[in-house]
Amino acid sequence: MATNKEITNRSEGYSEWYNNIVKKAGLASHSAVRGCMVIKPYGFAIWEKMQAQLDKMFKETGHQNAYFPLFIPKSFLSKEAEHVEGFAKECAVVTHHRLMNDPNGSGVIVDPDAKLEEELIVRPTSETIIWNTYRDWISSYRDLPLLINQWANVVRWELRTRMFLRTAEFLWQEGHTAHATKEEAIEETIQMINIYAQFAEEWMAVPVIKGVKSANERFAGAEDTYTIEALMQDGKALQSGTSHFLGQNFAKAFDVKFLNQGNKEEYVWATSWGVSTRLMGALIMTHSDDNGLVLPPKLAPLQVVIVPIPKANGAITEVAEEIMAELKAKGITVKYDSDKKNRPGFKFAEYEMKGVPVRLGIGKRDLANGVVEVARRDNLTKENVPLEGIADHIENLLNDIQDNLLNRSKQYRSEHTTKVDSWEEFQSVLEEKGGFISAHWDGTTETELKIKEATRATLRCIPMDNEQEEGKCVLTGKPSKQRVLFAKAY
Amino acid sequence: MATNKEITNRSEGYSEWYNNIVKKAGLASHSAVRGCMVIKPYGFAIWEKMQAQLDKMFKETGHQNAYFPLFIPKSFLSKEAEHVEGFAKECAVVTHHRLMNDPNGSGVIVDPDAKLEEELIVRPTSETIIWNTYRDWISSYRDLPLLINQWANVVRWELRTRMFLRTAEFLWQEGHTAHATKEEAIEETIQMINIYAQFAEEWMAVPVIKGVKSANERFAGAEDTYTIEALMQDGKALQSGTSHFLGQNFAKAFDVKFLNQGNKEEYVWATSWGVSTRLMGALIMTHSDDNGLVLPPKLAPLQVVIVPIPKANGAITEVAEEIMAELKAKGITVKYDSDKKNRPGFKFAEYEMKGVPVRLGIGKRDLANGVVEVARRDNLTKENVPLEGIADHIENLLNDIQDNLLNRSKQYRSEHTTKVDSWEEFQSVLEEKGGFISAHWDGTTETELKIKEATRATLRCIPMDNEQEEGKCVLTGKPSKQRVLFAKAY
Repeated sequence: MATNKEITNRSEGYSEWYNNIVKKAGLASHSAVRGCMVIKPYGFAIWEKMQAQLDKMFKETGHQNAYFPLFIPKSFLSKEAEHVEGFAKECAVVTHHRLMNDPNGSGVIVDPDAKLEEELIVRPTSETIIWNTYRDWISSYRDLPLLINQWANVVRWELRTRMFLRTAEFLWQEGHTAHATKEEAIEETIQMINIYAQFAEEWMAVPVIKGVKSANERFAGAEDTYTIEALMQDGKALQSGTSHFLGQNFAKAFDVKFLNQGNKEEYVWATSWGVSTRLMGALIMTHSDDNGLVLPPKLAPLQVVIVPIPKANGAITEVAEEIMAELKAKGITVKYDSDKKNRPGFKFAEYEMKGVPVRLGIGKRDLANGVVEVARRDNLTKENVPLEGIADHIENLLNDIQDNLLNRSKQYRSEHTTKVDSWEEFQSVLEEKGGFISAHWDGTTETELKIKEATRATLRCIPMDNEQEEGKCVLTGKPSKQRVLFAKAY
Repeated sequence: MATNKEITNRSEGYSEWYNNIVKKAGLASHSAVRGCMVIKPYGFAIWEKMQAQLDKMFKETGHQNAYFPLFIPKSFLSKEAEHVEGFAKECAVVTHHRLMNDPNGSGVIVDPDAKLEEELIVRPTSETIIWNTYRDWISSYRDLPLLINQWANVVRWELRTRMFLRTAEFLWQEGHTAHATKEEAIEETIQMINIYAQFAEEWMAVPVIKGVKSANERFAGAEDTYTIEALMQDGKALQSGTSHFLGQNFAKAFDVKFLNQGNKEEYVWATSWGVSTRLMGALIMTHSDDNGLVLPPKLAPLQVVIVPIPKANGAITEVAEEIMAELKAKGITVKYDSDKKNRPGFKFAEYEMKGVPVRLGIGKRDLANGVVEVARRDNLTKENVPLEGIADHIENLLNDIQDNLLNRSKQYRSEHTTKVDSWEEFQSVLEEKGGFISAHWDGTTETELKIKEATRATLRCIPMDNEQEEGKCVLTGKPSKQRVLFAKAY
């Protein structure tokens, strides 16, 4: 089948293909600011659908939204030792609060008299400013649990950026919860990684592995980091969401104590968890093809488009409007593209590029036969479908497409998850086939880093509910009790 | 009637009363960062309801959401002369992108080697970065109009801040539209000020005057600024939303041209418009009283609360659950507070503080008589209402409360809008009564500034559809064709 000539084929250059899709489907563009992107209306509409569903799932599990400051006093970052280590090297620092006219006449310059007493960091994540606030909000076990989420922008000064996957500024949500007991905090941490996994599979049609990070890959300041890991079409893994059990680290750093039921003072237990606009990258790289974007119906801003063939006339428009009314009544978003400036072929390519799940073509001859042409974006097949009952047919079809996308990516992942038992095999599978490698590991950071240095593969996670199995570390031969997942990753 | 002792009465200190309400109703709190506040869950829930309705109104008029970078290169600000003049004196400037360990061992310091080549400004508003982007998006009349909105945080380094009313960081939406003709851009500017006015009146129950700003009060870079002005209970005005006709100023500054239908190159016409978390301040100061917050039902996160008297038992809980089911079926949010730790009086005060529009009290004796006690938050009246048909009664009552709040504030405004015809009267009305002063003005910035200096009253607006009337300027006696509105303002 013909592929779109405006975009590089995946087989010729996956990275260029990705950039083409982002640009040509109207998802995002580069901005004048290094590493920052502009999220265009079509891309933002997809993100809004993700937000709406995630927000609903957070609220259904008792969380409330709030908003904390963009800026973090420099001294706050230092209060948790590992945290500052993790974020100090890549943060935007505000040092002044005023510009002035250059006395030498060359435009505006920073006013040297407007230097801040203490520099402010643009939040890379908000544990510090939030736990500093929680000190005022929590005094007794009656104030717990505190279940708060924030939708916000954050900044991490990354050197190598890629749209959606790694940008200096990105949009995300960050949950920050406070609990009276360790057990309850761990339960919350796991609840949230389960919610992320459910969202990824049921809404994005992206299957994920839930697991725990190794000590080396943990969030800076966490006692345990849970992750969901997805596999992209090029065999690389993408960390798609994380949920951290923070122990009492931030409570101790910011002196947040509560009186327990026995009237004794204790430090509060914490979690934090987040997903970001990076999910857009996962969505694109899981489903799309050489014709453009492919969207799961549940996240498609436009689910069905109707194209008159070769152009609109009274009879076609009348049928299109009837179909639209029926689809809208079912809560399906639909557009009738009767624009006469463009020919059907142009429109077909355009909607394929944008990943609209279902396209209806209505021509004069079709009408005479009481049928319309229904094209699926996921597998690019077409069939003639009777007008009678068309709305029900499309409703079912959208569900089928949603399921098919998930099954297809599950199958890809299963074909690209390989058990290996020797170092040689590890290297050859990684280079020739890619994907997840399931291998024994001796549990040390030293070995993990040696593997990374030798192959660029990282330890993605120790899967939750992992099968226990005696074995020998693929690199060192030392004893191991379970397999873990390695992969090259974004 | 008894007022809440935890808050200062309005008559004793309006400003302290305001701060008490913000704090005690759980709307917001100060943060560790100068001028930045934390929006607490209850405050944020109100803001979310505002956002949802405004977003709906924007989308219904054809606007789409997008997202542009937080940072603006310093040089961009200078490109529009008035714009830089307006914002350079109060902006957060990012100069470095890394921290490092202090070699002298005193924690982290800014890494002097990580200085940015060009400083970045945290956006105080986004005209510059957006118009720099529109240059790539617009080439022909077919690309117009471009109707974009963004929900975002912005930073203006204000010296004197007050929660919600004036904070260094605030949340807002900013619409930025591009048009082929001047007429269409002006039409858009007016459409948006009308939408803001409609939202303020129908949802916030805050009546507003729509008008045009004087040259002196215009947005930096605009040719015309439209405003909605509300009147607070202390007789001061609050600018609650603005919509700017930007002419071709930003198109010229950022070289954004399009080919018109006649295939000639022209500069694009622009508008921008915004409302912010400042609306929360307007909401609080229009309706609330000495018992706490008063919320219009359409924006109340919780519309009805049911309190068992003196405490929950099987029969009361059964009735409460029936009422809840009926109310929820009508889309009304309701909570049954069966907590046995607190007595009814405590609960009453708490829900009054939070501004819950309707409170139901259910006692044993009431049930025997087939009634419940229904208390309105707006006028603090109570009545016994038959259980039969209670849900319909409450639904109507919520509508009545919404209407009553609007009518009450309209009446207050009408009583506090005074026509004055002499300078003496201007001064005495301003000092003794406050409110809007409708007076003749000679149309010069010089006179406007003299009035401001003498009285601290500012020219709020020239009302749209203003009556034309010959008169003499209240200060200079020079001829005037219409009255304009003055007031002290937030």
